[in-house]
Amino acid sequence: MSYSQEMYGLGSQGSEIREIFEYGRRRKAEIGADKVFDFSLGNPSVPTPQAVTDAMIDILSTAEPTAVHGYTSGAGDMACRTAIAEDLNARYNCGADPALIYMTCGAAAALCCSFRALATEDADEFIAFAPFFPEYRVFCDTNGGKLVQVMMRENDFQIDLSLLDAAVNERTKGVVINSPNNPCGVVYTEETIRGLAAYLEKKQAEYGHPIYLITDEPYRELVYGGAVVPFVPNYYDNTIVCYSYSKSLSLPGERIGYALVSPKAADAKAVYAAICGAGRALGYVCAPSLMQHVITRCAGVQPNLAPYEENRRILLEGLTGAGFTCVNPDGAFYLFMKSPEPDAHAFAAKAKEHELLVVPCDSFGCPGYVRIGYCVSKETIEGSLPGFAALAKEYGLS
Amino acid sequence: MSYSQEMYGLGSQGSEIREIFEYGRRRKAEIGADKVFDFSLGNPSVPTPQAVTDAMIDILSTAEPTAVHGYTSGAGDMACRTAIAEDLNARYNCGADPALIYMTCGAAAALCCSFRALATEDADEFIAFAPFFPEYRVFCDTNGGKLVQVMMRENDFQIDLSLLDAAVNERTKGVVINSPNNPCGVVYTEETIRGLAAYLEKKQAEYGHPIYLITDEPYRELVYGGAVVPFVPNYYDNTIVCYSYSKSLSLPGERIGYALVSPKAADAKAVYAAICGAGRALGYVCAPSLMQHVITRCAGVQPNLAPYEENRRILLEGLTGAGFTCVNPDGAFYLFMKSPEPDAHAFAAKAKEHELLVVPCDSFGCPGYVRIGYCVSKETIEGSLPGFAALAKEYGLS
Repeated sequence: MSYSQEMYGLGSQGSEIREIFEYGRRRKAEIGADKVFDFSLGNPSVPTPQAVTDAMIDILSTAEPTAVHGYTSGAGDMACRTAIAEDLNARYNCGADPALIYMTCGAAAALCCSFRALATEDADEFIAFAPFFPEYRVFCDTNGGKLVQVMMRENDFQIDLSLLDAAVNERTKGVVINSPNNPCGVVYTEETIRGLAAYLEKKQAEYGHPIYLITDEPYRELVYGGAVVPFVPNYYDNTIVCYSYSKSLSLPGERIGYALVSPKAADAKAVYAAICGAGRALGYVCAPSLMQHVITRCAGVQPNLAPYEENRRILLEGLTGAGFTCVNPDGAFYLFMKSPEPDAHAFAAKAKEHELLVVPCDSFGCPGYVRIGYCVSKETIEGSLPGFAALAKEYGLS
Repeated sequence: MSYSQEMYGLGSQGSEIREIFEYGRRRKAEIGADKVFDFSLGNPSVPTPQAVTDAMIDILSTAEPTAVHGYTSGAGDMACRTAIAEDLNARYNCGADPALIYMTCGAAAALCCSFRALATEDADEFIAFAPFFPEYRVFCDTNGGKLVQVMMRENDFQIDLSLLDAAVNERTKGVVINSPNNPCGVVYTEETIRGLAAYLEKKQAEYGHPIYLITDEPYRELVYGGAVVPFVPNYYDNTIVCYSYSKSLSLPGERIGYALVSPKAADAKAVYAAICGAGRALGYVCAPSLMQHVITRCAGVQPNLAPYEENRRILLEGLTGAGFTCVNPDGAFYLFMKSPEPDAHAFAAKAKEHELLVVPCDSFGCPGYVRIGYCVSKETIEGSLPGFAALAKEYGLS
């Protein structure tokens, strides 16, 4: 064969989310943008904070262009890594070390580098809790690992240690968590993180090798109603944090984030070096330099959560008022709603008749649910409620 | 083992070029920046054109931030790909198709995606002509291929087809070229490209499968004295162009470039899909979005070559006048100089005594030569000449 069938498959297979979005575009052109309610994407609707735009323009207007746009070191500009470590230490008192922070093209790159760095043989397994972002499987399986799916506890979407225990074995190299979660919006409680940490400590001792906790945290700052996201390295030593500014600073296209190895991890420096080596192998020369300089100045800038908080409130009230059941949405910007019929695709098709575009979550490993991204305008939220009410009525929910 | 030894090796092994550069930094602090002549890096010294900076500031000042910084499609924003295709078609009349352009985080990502897309089994071989950028071996070997090295013809550093023929076999999946070349500055002539194309056509027919020509072209626009760089897709159908704006627009840290599949390639659409799939597998969600919007406006902006041209002239006259021998430097921004003793490391050590920092090219697959990057200030060039003259005298060259 003259090219890789596996890569061809990945490149030619369409994304369901993207297809729904494209349908929405066509439909808006047909009947008017204000009559279609597209909840398909996870693209932030809140603009990047003005402080970030100001920093970009100031850097471009005043700094020497060859310094702004030149290569940084492969691991990232030290000033940027230092600013990030200082911000994390101020917030979490976690001993973050700039020498163990590797700047990446977003969390996707951080995850791929982590899998590639840790996987040593074909049989190395990484466990992820469903529902999870479907690309996890691609990132893991094409970078030397094998993704193993474990369901979250269905009543509250926290981690069920007995389900986890049924999946862990000697080949378990790592466990991936994502809290606040895409697609279900759940934030793992401190109790959940403590329980997971204690369980993994026990299994590490039993098997005599580290089990890494890879924590994918692009939504870390997106929490509502006083929910607290435990900072995982403070609970478990063998932790790798994969972070992105995509959601917190509304910079998803700019591809800026990092992988952080906990200084308390076993062989922390060697694991960090392996992540840097994986970055080389995957062709990441450095993370985008202007954005690194921006983060140096803006590491402590907080997201503007007010629009998401308001959308969430209005939508949650509207949906539960109409009779739908949603998972407790403490974080991220998604509502995870139980489909009133077992087949979420069939439900999404009926929703579409009301011009409501939602994402069936079968591909997230969780059939029977849909994801409703509320990173949209308030007008979209408000305009969608009559449709949802009518839909609920069709199903006899109200 | 709890992490990958291969990735650890890649991440912990220092870059020789980077070490020379770091030595230069320390030495400048000791004796003064104007007394150390550092020719180690390939970081452009010419600032990005003002039109590019103006475009960035204008976009940031006037466009809607969620549009500027939002995800583009995985293959890149269509307006950007269209602007690139139009520019290429205007210059080369090559039938470039936006639907076959995949925006990447620079040429390194384009190369990694190409290797990953094409390699189908462990035995798939890709041939590169030495001297070549040392990362080629990393990019190829960690993405499913096996790099095979063939020396260029030593008298003029063009391609020697008899040496190539000794290396080509049924497992040859592709051939990588880099013209203008890093580190030797040579531009392949039209005769060379025609000869290579005819040879590969013959071997394709003989083996009954495509042999892809992967052409790494970050220096395409950096040529001097009227040299012409043949546009390879116009000579050979099964061509993949890997391009970067790192050198032409002095944006190396921003990671913006593309992979282009020739519309005349066999299975062009499938090969393109495989490259897109490889991008997914390697964690490239999209190329940095602000830079894509910048390229949409600046695809036709030409580099400012005057400073490099002047540096090249002064340095070449100085070195050859002192008795050194340099390869004909038609392009890029490197002089490739024959070491006056067989061991280029020993020569570089002697040069260091004169505060001249040059790169031995053993790691480029070409012992006995050093690379002198003239992407530095004119003052560095002029200030270095007495040292080079003294060095030549030590070797009895003048």
